[in-house]
Amino acid sequence: MRDMSDDDTNHPATEIERKFLVSDPPVPRRSPASIHQGYVTVGPDGTEVRLRRKGDRFFQTIKRGSGLSRIESEIELTREQFDALWPQTEGRRVVKDRYEIPYRGCVIELDVFHGALEGLVIAEVEFGTVNQSNSFTPPDWFGDDVTEDPRYTNRSLAIEGRPGQNT
Amino acid sequence: MRDMSDDDTNHPATEIERKFLVSDPPVPRRSPASIHQGYVTVGPDGTEVRLRRKGDRFFQTIKRGSGLSRIESEIELTREQFDALWPQTEGRRVVKDRYEIPYRGCVIELDVFHGALEGLVIAEVEFGTVNQSNSFTPPDWFGDDVTEDPRYTNRSLAIEGRPGQNT
Repeated sequence: MRDMSDDDTNHPATEIERKFLVSDPPVPRRSPASIHQGYVTVGPDGTEVRLRRKGDRFFQTIKRGSGLSRIESEIELTREQFDALWPQTEGRRVVKDRYEIPYRGCVIELDVFHGALEGLVIAEVEFGTVNQSNSFTPPDWFGDDVTEDPRYTNRSLAIEGRPGQNT
Repeated sequence: MRDMSDDDTNHPATEIERKFLVSDPPVPRRSPASIHQGYVTVGPDGTEVRLRRKGDRFFQTIKRGSGLSRIESEIELTREQFDALWPQTEGRRVVKDRYEIPYRGCVIELDVFHGALEGLVIAEVEFGTVNQSNSFTPPDWFGDDVTEDPRYTNRSLAIEGRPGQNT
């Protein structure tokens, strides 16, 4: 079985996760991680080059292909490397605070967006198996399930903006 | 005036260079630098993400846009970072030996290709000004001027192969 740890440098090849809109999040008990991420390029073949700053750490992720042939490579960058590349993401960025909330053996990642996406809050839950995903009972403060809605990928939010709010 | 040094981490924004095919190169007096370069992605908007190993140093270059609005960012990578990303370039690589040959106040970069491009030799000369470029007299061992031929960019050679030799 694959290593399913999620430490930002060692993602599993296949993620099983669900995603929900949130209109009235609970008051978080822990402080968030500040995340800035931007997309260098999103090719028509699905290639994605993403830069991310999470607190004081810096990452670059490349994803190619789709489905089973998807290859993902992530490296940690120094701050200097990140700063040199970050201008390449101008106009294709999201800024958000991420709260991690333990919930019935899972962890809810609550993303509170800022900047152009101010007001948008999305909760993501990652699962070890499809069974766990199917049997998951969302807390009552979760809104619409947007797991299958491509407009709510971070990549789409960064490039296209918030769905239904073309500005 | 811009810094025109060419030290692999500080390229000028605009390069003035000419490129020639070579069928019968002179015997080089110095040993070459071994270059492996591969393209992560080449987007329809002109975005290019290139990895390069030159001897024992490793680089990633991102180029976006075209013409005057072209932005280029290059960072040096550690070997570990390079190794983690290199698989993303599979099928879009060139391998070559680069000889640097002083010639009348310029430096000729003589690229001897290997692998799928074995037999191809290209000479490049970079100039400080358009005047220098126009008044350049090629040595008699230079062949066709392919400066304007897009099939002879390294990126095209890596992806499309050698012109006229579809295999």
